[in-house]
Amino acid sequence: MNKNSSNIMALAPNTSNKRETVCIFGTGDFGRALGYKMIQSGYSVVYGSRSTQISNLIPKDAEVLSHAEAAQKATVIIIAIQRQHYNFLTPLAEILRGKVLVDISNNLKLNQYPESNAEYLAQLLPGSKVVKGFNTVSAWALQSGTLDASRQVFVCGDDAEAKQMVMNIVRTLGLTPVDKGSLLAAQEIENYPLQLFPMWKFPIFLSLGLTAFFFFYCLALDVIYTYIYENNNFSFFIAITIPNRVCPVMALILLALVYLPGIFAAIIQLYRGTKYRRFPDWLDKWMLCRKQLGLIALAFACLHAVFTLVAPLRAFVSWRTSKGIISQALNNKTEPLNHTTAWISDSYLALGILGFFLFVLLGITSLPSVSNNVNWREFRFVQSKLGYLALIFCTAHTLVYGGKWFLSPSAYKWYLPNIYMLSLVVPCAVLVVKFVLIFPCVDKPLTRIRQGWERNPKYSE
Amino acid sequence: MNKNSSNIMALAPNTSNKRETVCIFGTGDFGRALGYKMIQSGYSVVYGSRSTQISNLIPKDAEVLSHAEAAQKATVIIIAIQRQHYNFLTPLAEILRGKVLVDISNNLKLNQYPESNAEYLAQLLPGSKVVKGFNTVSAWALQSGTLDASRQVFVCGDDAEAKQMVMNIVRTLGLTPVDKGSLLAAQEIENYPLQLFPMWKFPIFLSLGLTAFFFFYCLALDVIYTYIYENNNFSFFIAITIPNRVCPVMALILLALVYLPGIFAAIIQLYRGTKYRRFPDWLDKWMLCRKQLGLIALAFACLHAVFTLVAPLRAFVSWRTSKGIISQALNNKTEPLNHTTAWISDSYLALGILGFFLFVLLGITSLPSVSNNVNWREFRFVQSKLGYLALIFCTAHTLVYGGKWFLSPSAYKWYLPNIYMLSLVVPCAVLVVKFVLIFPCVDKPLTRIRQGWERNPKYSE
Amino acid sequence: MNKNSSNIMALAPNTSNKRETVCIFGTGDFGRALGYKMIQSGYSVVYGSRSTQISNLIPKDAEVLSHAEAAQKATVIIIAIQRQHYNFLTPLAEILRGKVLVDISNNLKLNQYPESNAEYLAQLLPGSKVVKGFNTVSAWALQSGTLDASRQVFVCGDDAEAKQMVMNIVRTLGLTPVDKGSLLAAQEIENYPLQLFPMWKFPIFLSLGLTAFFFFYCLALDVIYTYIYENNNFSFFIAITIPNRVCPVMALILLALVYLPGIFAAIIQLYRGTKYRRFPDWLDKWMLCRKQLGLIALAFACLHAVFTLVAPLRAFVSWRTSKGIISQALNNKTEPLNHTTAWISDSYLALGILGFFLFVLLGITSLPSVSNNVNWREFRFVQSKLGYLALIFCTAHTLVYGGKWFLSPSAYKWYLPNIYMLSLVVPCAVLVVKFVLIFPCVDKPLTRIRQGWERNPKYSE
Repeated sequence: MNKNSSNIMALAPNTSNKRETVCIFGTGDFGRALGYKMIQSGYSVVYGSRSTQISNLIPKDAEVLSHAEAAQKATVIIIAIQRQHYNFLTPLAEILRGKVLVDISNNLKLNQYPESNAEYLAQLLPGSKVVKGFNTVSAWALQSGTLDASRQVFVCGDDAEAKQMVMNIVRTLGLTPVDKGSLLAAQEIENYPLQLFPMWKFPIFLSLGLTAFFFFYCLALDVIYTYIYENNNFSFFIAITIPNRVCPVMALILLALVYLPGIFAAIIQLYRGTKYRRFPDWLDKWMLCRKQLGLIALAFACLHAVFTLVAPLRAFVSWRTSKGIISQALNNKTEPLNHTTAWISDSYLALGILGFFLFVLLGITSLPSVSNNVNWREFRFVQSKLGYLALIFCTAHTLVYGGKWFLSPSAYKWYLPNIYMLSLVVPCAVLVVKFVLIFPCVDKPLTRIRQGWERNPKYSE
Repeated sequence: MNKNSSNIMALAPNTSNKRETVCIFGTGDFGRALGYKMIQSGYSVVYGSRSTQISNLIPKDAEVLSHAEAAQKATVIIIAIQRQHYNFLTPLAEILRGKVLVDISNNLKLNQYPESNAEYLAQLLPGSKVVKGFNTVSAWALQSGTLDASRQVFVCGDDAEAKQMVMNIVRTLGLTPVDKGSLLAAQEIENYPLQLFPMWKFPIFLSLGLTAFFFFYCLALDVIYTYIYENNNFSFFIAITIPNRVCPVMALILLALVYLPGIFAAIIQLYRGTKYRRFPDWLDKWMLCRKQLGLIALAFACLHAVFTLVAPLRAFVSWRTSKGIISQALNNKTEPLNHTTAWISDSYLALGILGFFLFVLLGITSLPSVSNNVNWREFRFVQSKLGYLALIFCTAHTLVYGGKWFLSPSAYKWYLPNIYMLSLVVPCAVLVVKFVLIFPCVDKPLTRIRQGWERNPKYSE
Repeated sequence: MNKNSSNIMALAPNTSNKRETVCIFGTGDFGRALGYKMIQSGYSVVYGSRSTQISNLIPKDAEVLSHAEAAQKATVIIIAIQRQHYNFLTPLAEILRGKVLVDISNNLKLNQYPESNAEYLAQLLPGSKVVKGFNTVSAWALQSGTLDASRQVFVCGDDAEAKQMVMNIVRTLGLTPVDKGSLLAAQEIENYPLQLFPMWKFPIFLSLGLTAFFFFYCLALDVIYTYIYENNNFSFFIAITIPNRVCPVMALILLALVYLPGIFAAIIQLYRGTKYRRFPDWLDKWMLCRKQLGLIALAFACLHAVFTLVAPLRAFVSWRTSKGIISQALNNKTEPLNHTTAWISDSYLALGILGFFLFVLLGITSLPSVSNNVNWREFRFVQSKLGYLALIFCTAHTLVYGGKWFLSPSAYKWYLPNIYMLSLVVPCAVLVVKFVLIFPCVDKPLTRIRQGWERNPKYSE
């Protein structure tokens, strides 16, 4: 349902729809926020607290009782207290027998305890039905109604009926419950809100490192070298010219790095003659972050495209163009069209456009909602066939663009190669090895290995 | 499953798979469309009608009986009649006892009746199990098989088994059931198909109003002023030049308006010393449409980018460029490169590109399928940190671009400031206040308030 | 939950969480891959095999027993054997009574057998609870942990509890179960992984055919004609100039083809006076691939936009520009600004930008996650109103751009019209007929027909 519509509705408490009573143990921040939201959604809320003095922080329509009294009033009890204080619940075991206890706690670190908080609670109170939930929702967002982020509430528990009751409450609050199975999933659910793009860390640090390296490499060759030897101050190259050299290089290298681990995996499998042995750890991890590498490569490619397209708007480019035209005019002659130049210029632009187009297509198919709508065969077709085609186009784009400089000595300032030459190493290697791998004499055994055949079955004994 | 594949299948009725019998009360348009679709999917359909004459509008394979006879043939009865006629069902209460009644009705207005149609039906027939569903699907789309829009069918009801039976029918018709909980959700489900972008109304009207204002402001200063005082007819500026002045201004202002309510909220909380009081209504509503404001801002930013990039293709720009070059050539001199101009031109282009890039990134993360895959912490990081960074880049882009004109008297035609000066007011204000708010002496109490602390607990007594 | 995080977790087997025992019949590739993954996720796995010799291909922690012994150890039995060998299970019927049998088989062709494999299994073993599942997952991806594609596992079955047990296993393996209803859905689930973009085939072949035709048409007129009659070698036009003529033409024609079937449908309904008769087959199929046609049109439009924007970077364009400027400079005169040219150039650029902008908007709303968040009314508004507006803008863009050549004889080389004239035929026809259809005297009867009214009720008797 429309995210926002339900939000608006939630703002207007609908008192006519009276729902059952829910008990909340603990009057901390999240307990209060959840209580407010539940009262707004039509539930009666009873707080269980050590001191039954009515605190003014607690929502006005809620009752505050002792833990034992509050627990008796409701079937569903939300445990909004910290794990360290769970053991004070053991005396209440008899009252909590058969009740649905909702563990909403979070930890401060990943895998802080050997077992998840919800499993610990279930061990303490074996007679109660423990359900994990709500821990992925922010108290602040719940209360202010600004749940722009995910409305998904992950729920898990061993008792199907108890889980269903909790999922109904989740739905009533305008959130989307997602059943994650039995209570064994609680650890994963508790770790979830603590993560900050775990899969992106390595790709981002790698890109930042490489970007910094190439930036200073270009700075040295294009600005400092020119300043020293040609006495030209091109410091403004820092803003556009150099970024527009680094971006395409990064895009090409990262795109090649997406396909490199697949090449390694094929070689390892061919060498070992079996697929039934784990890859080395670094290869496993690399394969898992290919999507992220690809998306960062796409970001660099987009920046390259925009940086290139703004060229005619740059004061420096206008000045260079006019200078060229004026010198021709002053010499009273018009240069004829150089067909080779026209061919090269149009070819690398066309190759770049097609490569970029396929690259964007790959990016779109990696959107979760699109990739959920394609089957495995279709996904493989797009990511593997179109992916390699994009790599071929982009490599060809770079080769045609820079080809003429390979043999020119002026391209080797300080005896260092230009960076687009460096950028070609990995993609060319990937393409050459891939070309070898699709030869039937190599492809056939590889396919058989991937279908479960083993060259040397004794090997793994 | 692939949307379209199931569509194709639905076209070929599969008579070998005989399913149970479903009864439909009412032979109106939706009743007939649903009947056709059900017969195609393998169900036997019995219509309950006042006149049992076989009308030729009814699908050929369906039976038509009196209401009582038809109801006895099936467990699931679809009530395809209007709410006003529900009371004629009361005599059938005994026959309908224990049956699953599917309320598919819609209203003409939001919240037309005090209780939802489904709840009204459940009150009339307390012995039956009422399930709400199918009201969000269009009869026309159902019949023509062109369900390109959402295939989601929202279902709610108090009886879990009855709901499951209806959800199975939904799945068989190639649609996706979404469990919305108990029958109390029926009101929301009935309101849903009547909405037309409810959250977009205010942002769209605001943008249209501001756009019109800035358009005529520019028209006056750039076309009319020039025509009157300089006798130049630049009426063709209406097509690109003026839109390309209005778009960036709108993008920047709307982006700042996304972050302004957060600033207000922080100030209000600091002043009150508590988070446990509701914000004023206007602020609540404003906060709820921030996403929409941001997306409209992004649309303006995209238009600005494209309008800017086509500049070299415009006849006017080509003419202006050649004029400049020819005048230099005729004066027999070449202007040297102005390094300051080169720096300024490259800087504002680079700042604009980076700001735009971050802006697009924000837009992508606000796609539902992407935001469902990030947790709260990640969402906050992207929307808050990257969002402010985008605002800073875009504001800097405007400042560097227009900086030189602030002190030039020619920029104040009719003593009015140029519009990019107007556009800077809100973003600069937001950035300055935000800068104050992140000082520890202000940030610390605010964080404590948001964690539930109160400065003056007596206040709310 | 974050796709990748669960992936990482899956790599680290969590032996502390011991789950129930699962039995797998068959030690083929998929059986082994599933066994590995299950052991990693904490299940005990027992293989049922003809030879109980412990093969080294089988995961180390798994037991291998005879079929009968293995089946007794578990409630859930995964049938990882091929359909042809199902009949050897009949002797085990007594042991398998009441057990949950998971059919994971796939076929080699669409609809290979009259009934699905799962239904065949259920017929063979009527005492067991058959659940279809896992067939959409790739063994290779399951084992290498690189499930970048859809993690959805479609599950169907007649026994709700058995289905729930299988869905819990699916969740534990880090995949997302999707309930597809009763076992009758098995056929569709078995066909699913065999498809390769079934809805895209016709649109893609149509586009390829048209593209080839227009490409050679342009090649003849722009390169060969020029070479023969004007002795100019413009062969480099193949890279950018000709593609940039073909792309906009394809985009416009395909966009018009999206709206053409709707026009046909309206005319057919008006002529027949009823909506209760099926459209001809070709129209049904055409209507079902409108979304795909639209997206291909959008791809061509994007290519056209980029090809146009790179124009100033092309060597040929720079050369042509300088030539023009130098000839003016050498003639010692500056051409004044031609206001008509300025108007035309700015108008078609602005029209093209707006049309493209609306087109991209349409593309974004057709993303599954976005279209799931809008209701039917909103979807119709966007796709119909905004879609026609985009078509109007794009047609106007072409008309303004090419208008001046309609009357020029030089545009008719070899007496053939320029291709943008050809491209205007379909869109103009669509717009004219649509314009007629929205007249009240035509629109009113059409609306009534679509609401279920029939002009001639006897007709269908």
